[in-house]
This record gives sequence, C-alpha cells and structure tokens, in this order.
Amino acid sequence: MSAYDDLMAFQRETEALAQVAGRLGWDQETVMPRGAAEQRSEEMAAMEGVLHARRTDRRIADWLGQARAADDVAAAQLRLIRRSYERATKVPASLAQEIARVTSMAQGIWAEARAKEDVPGFLPVLAEVIRLRQEEGAALAAGGDPYDALIDDYEPGATAATIGAMFDRMRPRLVALRGRVLGAAKQPAGLSGKFGEEAQMRFARDLATAFGYDWNRGRLDIAVHPFSSGSGDDARITTRVAETDPFNCFYSTIHEVGHACYELGIDLDYRLTPLGSGVSMGVHESQSRIYENQLGRSRAFTGWMFGEMRARFGEFGIDDADAFHAAVNRVQPGFIRTEADEVHYNLHIMMRFDLERALIRGDLAVGDLEAAWNDRFAADFGVKVDRPSHGMLQDVHWSVGLFGYFPTYTLGNVYAGCLHRALRADIPDLDEALARGDASPATGWLRERVQRHGGLREPRATIAHACGFEPDEGPLLDYIEAKFAAIYDL
Amino acid sequence: MSAYDDLMAFQRETEALAQVAGRLGWDQETVMPRGAAEQRSEEMAAMEGVLHARRTDRRIADWLGQARAADDVAAAQLRLIRRSYERATKVPASLAQEIARVTSMAQGIWAEARAKEDVPGFLPVLAEVIRLRQEEGAALAAGGDPYDALIDDYEPGATAATIGAMFDRMRPRLVALRGRVLGAAKQPAGLSGKFGEEAQMRFARDLATAFGYDWNRGRLDIAVHPFSSGSGDDARITTRVAETDPFNCFYSTIHEVGHACYELGIDLDYRLTPLGSGVSMGVHESQSRIYENQLGRSRAFTGWMFGEMRARFGEFGIDDADAFHAAVNRVQPGFIRTEADEVHYNLHIMMRFDLERALIRGDLAVGDLEAAWNDRFAADFGVKVDRPSHGMLQDVHWSVGLFGYFPTYTLGNVYAGCLHRALRADIPDLDEALARGDASPATGWLRERVQRHGGLREPRATIAHACGFEPDEGPLLDYIEAKFAAIYDL
Repeated sequence: MSAYDDLMAFQRETEALAQVAGRLGWDQETVMPRGAAEQRSEEMAAMEGVLHARRTDRRIADWLGQARAADDVAAAQLRLIRRSYERATKVPASLAQEIARVTSMAQGIWAEARAKEDVPGFLPVLAEVIRLRQEEGAALAAGGDPYDALIDDYEPGATAATIGAMFDRMRPRLVALRGRVLGAAKQPAGLSGKFGEEAQMRFARDLATAFGYDWNRGRLDIAVHPFSSGSGDDARITTRVAETDPFNCFYSTIHEVGHACYELGIDLDYRLTPLGSGVSMGVHESQSRIYENQLGRSRAFTGWMFGEMRARFGEFGIDDADAFHAAVNRVQPGFIRTEADEVHYNLHIMMRFDLERALIRGDLAVGDLEAAWNDRFAADFGVKVDRPSHGMLQDVHWSVGLFGYFPTYTLGNVYAGCLHRALRADIPDLDEALARGDASPATGWLRERVQRHGGLREPRATIAHACGFEPDEGPLLDYIEAKFAAIYDL
Repeated sequence: MSAYDDLMAFQRETEALAQVAGRLGWDQETVMPRGAAEQRSEEMAAMEGVLHARRTDRRIADWLGQARAADDVAAAQLRLIRRSYERATKVPASLAQEIARVTSMAQGIWAEARAKEDVPGFLPVLAEVIRLRQEEGAALAAGGDPYDALIDDYEPGATAATIGAMFDRMRPRLVALRGRVLGAAKQPAGLSGKFGEEAQMRFARDLATAFGYDWNRGRLDIAVHPFSSGSGDDARITTRVAETDPFNCFYSTIHEVGHACYELGIDLDYRLTPLGSGVSMGVHESQSRIYENQLGRSRAFTGWMFGEMRARFGEFGIDDADAFHAAVNRVQPGFIRTEADEVHYNLHIMMRFDLERALIRGDLAVGDLEAAWNDRFAADFGVKVDRPSHGMLQDVHWSVGLFGYFPTYTLGNVYAGCLHRALRADIPDLDEALARGDASPATGWLRERVQRHGGLREPRATIAHACGFEPDEGPLLDYIEAKFAAIYDL
C-alpha cells in the first residue's frame, strides 16, 4: 500500500463515520422519540469525539508528506484532506470543545429568548459565542482576517472583500426593484382555502419525482425546519406542511430536492471520499435555488403545477395559469428571511453579512446590534421591526456560531443565476418540457455540468466550468428584474 | 479522577457509540432507502471498527488493574467491563475480522439457498462459519468447552450440560402434551376474514400502551422481521402486518414491548453504562415471553381483546371470549419455529440445541445435518419435513454465526414461567386488571423485580432474586400443561 492508499483508506472510514453522524442528525429531526433528546446529545458528542480524533490524527500529516497524486482526481483528494487537516489542527482542542459546549447551550437560550422576545436574555451568550469565534477565526487566519477565515469554512476561496463589493453592487438594484414592485398598480392575489395535508404530501412526492429525485436512494419526511441530509447513496429530504400554505410544502420540497440531487448526482467513484460531497455551501445553495426558483417558479413549470393543483385541490381562488404564476411569485413586505420572495431574499442576507462582519471585526458591539439591525431593516425594507422575533432574534445561525455562513445563501442565488443563463442558452426549448412538468432536461444538464464533479474543483471554478464564464451577479439581477417586470407590468 | 472514574468515562462513550451503531441497525430495517444498502455496510463496518478498537483498548487493562469498587454497583460495573474486555482480547483480531467477513457473506448465501431450496449451495459456507466459530470458541474457552464459551456470550453462567439436562427433562412432557392436544376431540377454530392494516396498527399501539410502553421514549414501526432496538431513553419496537393474520401483528408487538420495557425500565442511573442493558438474552426473552404469553395470551386479557376486536373489526367467525382464547392459543402442526405455539416452540429449540452442539463439537458433520434435522423433526413433531425451507434452511441464525444463541429462547420461556408463578402469588387478583385490558400491576411488578436492576446480578441470580426461588422448568411446564388441558378439555 502506498501512503496515498493508506491515507485514502483511513479517510474513507472517517467519511463513513461522518455519514453515520449525519444520519443521527436526520433521526433526531424526524423520528426520534422526544424523551431521547438528552441521551442523544451524549451519543452525538461521542461521535464528534471520534471524528475529531480522526480528523486531527497525526498520521494524516505523515501520509500527506509522502503521498503522491497520480492524477487530477488524486490531487484534488489530497488538497481537500490537507485543508481539512490544517483547519482541524490549527484550532486548539480546548477551544473547539469550548465552542461546542457554548453553542450547544446558546441555541437553547436563543430559542427561549425568541419565544419571550427577550433580547437582553440572549446578548450575554451571543457575546460569548462571538468572542470564541473571533478567537477561532484568528487561529485559522494566522495573521489574516478572522472573518475571512470563518467564511472560508463554508465557501473556500471567498473573501469578505469580494462578497462585500458584489453585495454593494446588488443592493441598490434590489432596493429599487422592491420599491417599484410594491408600488405597482397590479398586485397579484394569493391562494384561498385549505389544502389537505396528505394531498399536499402526495403532490410534494410527485414534485420531487418531477425534479428527478431518486427514491431508491432517498426518502421524504416531515420536519419542523426542512433540510436535506446525507451523501452517496442515501440523501434524504424533509419538508413541512401547513393547511393554508401549500407553497411552503411544495417549494421547500423542491429546494431540498436540489440539495439532495447534488449529493446523489456526484460520481459514485467519489463516494465516501472528500470529493463525494457538495463542494461548498454556495454551490450547494445554487442547486437548491435553481431547482426552486429559476425552474420551479418559472411560468412554464407553474403552468403545469396550476393544472395539477386544480385537479387535486379543486378551487382555490386563482382562475388562470398567469395569475397562478403571479401568486407563486408574489412579492410582499415581511420581516422573516425564510419566508422572503426572490426580490427581498438577498436584501435579508446582505444586512446579516454587514452586521456579522462588523460583529466579528469588533466594529459593532453586541449591545448595539438590535438598533443596527432595525435601522438597516427600515432603510432596505421600508418597515419598522415590530418585535425582536421579527428582527435580530429570528435566525438560529448566530446562536450556534454560524458566522460567515449567511453570505453563501446569496452566493448560491448568484451562482444559480449564472447556471440558469448557461442552461437556457444550451437548451432553448427547456420551457416546453417544464410546461409538461418535466424538469429532466434541466436536471440532466445540472448533473452533467455541476453535480457529478463533487469537490473536484474549487467552488468558483465549479460554477465557471459549468457556465463557460466567470460568475457574477449580473445574470441573477437581470433574471429577477425581467421576471418581476413581467409579472407586475412594470 | 480515579482509575474507576476514568474507566467509566471511557466506557460511557463506548456505550453511547454502541447505541449509535444500534440505531443504524434500526434505520436499516425500517426507513433506509433500499439503494443505500452497500454504503450502509461500509458505515456499519466503520462503526464496528471504532467499537472494537475501544473494547480492546489496552488502557482498559490498566484501569481495571487500579480501579477499586466503592459499592456493589461499582463492583458489578467492573465485573461486566472485565468480562467484555477479556472476551474481546482473547479472540485474535484477524479471526474476528474473518468471522465478520464470512458471516456477512454467508447470510446472503443462506437467503438465496433458502429461496431456491438449495441445501448443497449453503453447506460449504456453513462449514466455514462452523470452523471459525469452533476456533473462536476454543480461543475463548482456553481449554474448556468451546460450545460453552459460545453460550456464555449470550447467557453468562449457562453451560451446555445444565441446559441439556433441563431440556432432557422437558422434552418428554412436551412431546406427550403435543400428542394429547393434537389428538383431542375438541379443536378450536381460527379467525376468518380480513383485518385492515391501519386498524391493526392502531390496535397494536393500544396494546403497547396497555402493556406500559413509554411512547415518549420509543416508537413503533413496521419491519419484515419484528425486533426491538436501543436502550436508555430510546428503545424502539417494530411489528409486521398481514391482512389475514392479525395475531401476528398484535403478539409481535406485545413481545417486542416486553423487550423494550426491560430496557426502558432499567434504573436511569445505569444509562450508558454496562449495567444499563438487559443482562442476558435469556432474561431478555423472559420479559418478551411473559408479556406475550403468560399475560397477553391469558384468558383474562384475551377476554378484553375479544371485545376490542369485535368493536374494531366486526365479525370474524368467533362468537365468545372462550372460543377467542382458544383461537389465540390454537395448537397446530407446523414446520416453522417463529410461527410455533407454546406447546411446539420449545421442541423447536431443543432440536436446534442438540444439533448445533453436535456441530460445534464435531460430533455431527455438516453433510449429515439435513438428515439429522429431518429425523429429529419426525420424532418430535410427527411430521416429515417437506422441503429445506421448512427444515434446516428456515432460520438465519447459523448463517450469521449464532451458535449458542438458540437455547436462550427456551431459557427465556423457563424464566418467564418462574416469574409468572411468583407474580401470581404476589398479585392474586391480577386477572381482574387484565380483564379490563390493564396489565400495569404485572408490568409494575416486573419493572420492580427484574427490569430496573439491569445487569446488576448474573442472569440466573436476576431471576432467583425476582422470584424468591431458584429457577427451573417446573413452573413453565405446569403452566403449559394446565393451560392447554383447559383449552382442549384434556
């Protein structure tokens, strides 16, 4: 056995154990008995201990020192293993444990604070989380920018400077579009009536099938917050169901199908290796977003959905496919990121990016966060935040230490915009298939261009390779502006 | 930290990881996508590797050498850890790996051979499994009897000699009873009609509730072969559903509830420690069997069930509670162990015990197994085996290396008989509660006398402590003879 083979065999077991830990998370959010929560946290901690020990195993350094890559694939494997090892070993074990301990506790404090609209109850632990992540960022950055080091964990190669510059270009166009849309004379209607939960789940399954989800290697369950989980031959999705809001169920499903199809679409030769998972959060989100928005909310696909929904649910206050397309894409003021439409969504992300960057850099004190949030929200959304759970307490992310994660959502949208431009150029008659409820020409293109490569290329290079051009925000903004101009007669 | 504390902290993580591995097994049999099987076997192997490394970790020997037990509980913990460590380290790693490899392969070969009625196709790999287990037994026995060493893994303290002597006392009484029952003038009728699967599952849930299953720490799902899984605060059960055979669903559920209630009933102070699991297969089976048979198939409880089933399912060809009790307990000739009634069941086990003991000791050649099986079956059951899947190919056990396991089923029945005698003596009016569908006086007694102690005492001592007398086969045989004499007017 060569050093490369030894390293890959060791790594393969680590990847398999990481899949096990992931499955435990799926279990917890879908089927676990409520009373098992305390024991489960101990089981998870034991798995994390095993994984941390393997990821910082000193033999990895020896193997990396001796291993020679026979080809590009092997070189990419070694690059990803080296990055993971360096990140894992740069952070002192005591700091990693302290972060795990505090964030686990902070999530509960956040949930309680949100329920009680109690900002002061959350600020001390938030300050502690920020301090720990600043320390971790500094350890990882080794003299560079700590916030960049945190971003790099989710989106290798991205920096606050390039993201910030792009967001600064996007923001005025989106704010202006938002004003024109909300001020338009034509305002679409929403759905009325109730939609049976079982019938919603049946249609959700059919939508997943329409987008090419492989039921032999996945399953759909209900969870409080929809998510996808797992890699290789076992990538499961979840959705939620509310009687009066079927789009929530349907578009959550399509979104998670995008994530799962990415994992399931990766070349099976890469299974249980570092190349066998989506390459970054941004590229992952590009798949979920293009499935959900550019394809799932298109005029062609919603035309098919309208017929299906009328057949399955009867009357719901919408009389034709154009009005249905407008209802699916209705732009409405709102406080909550996860409920935001395509016009508002990225504005939510941009403000979180600016605020968290300032928090990590020490330019914004935790005590000033609420005022900063509310001022920015009023400026971009034209509305005054009426309560903390509609403002800075709405997201779980910061409580669990996710700083540097938010920008990958908009990066995903930007990448989806680029992929959509290239896809439409390659398949000019795509709408004919979508209008029949058949997304397979698009999903086949995405599998071939993006998904099957897994972690072979760096995130930006993955998108550039797929599109044939360097990604930027132009295609996304052009798409959004054209789409909403048409819907709102702007 | 003392050596004892260090050891227990290490052991606790191992126990938590073992729970994770168990949950993975549950997942595989209930919710796993079919296409994930190959990947799953790699994930399981990685978990087994982690667990084996921990169970043979040399620090355990050091800690055991230095640890001092402060009380009886600590002494029991040390005793169980020492036994596990000694067993794990006595078997060479290469042999353990070879057994894992061959039995994993053999299970597939067995399944195919059973489907094709192909005994010669199974014999070579069975011979290999036997050879490996002989070798393992010899390594464990260190000069003693290899088959005893294998039994000891499932039932510490039991030996082939004591089990064999007991079985020899039981067999003639059961064979004689079998003849009288099947020759009786009165023969009960069975159920007729179809029973909706959803309604069966609803009643199965109510039965689990009646037997005190804690839904906050468990759940019920469907599986091909019913099983229970997990410990501490997460002990799940499964059952199966067939439209024309509702008793299969109901009594599988009650059986698995017995297993799960044992795990859930153990003192929570023992959670994630060696004391926190059922002490042996035999004692485990005593819980599932007393729930299923002595309680669940009693005249009092089936009286309540009859009313419930009439209310839920309407007419099914049985007109009164006595006839229903007889139908539940109907004795019929049959080839299959898992479908056997209380009269036949132990006869199935005894023949497997004699055959596997002869195989492991080298007194029976694999090539002669089929003839030996069929001869013995004709002698004890009065019927000629008509095909291998009704004979020696019916059980998975030997293919996966389970030698020494079968006798624990009958040991469980014997222990259940003893517990039932003591229970009835302590709670003379138990039938009044059972007749209302309330098993709680019995389950409370079992929790207090058996379940809460977990692994504190050795298996036989666990039963003796609960009953107040040394266990033997008498109470079980007396109970069976009296019960079937009444049902069949013998």
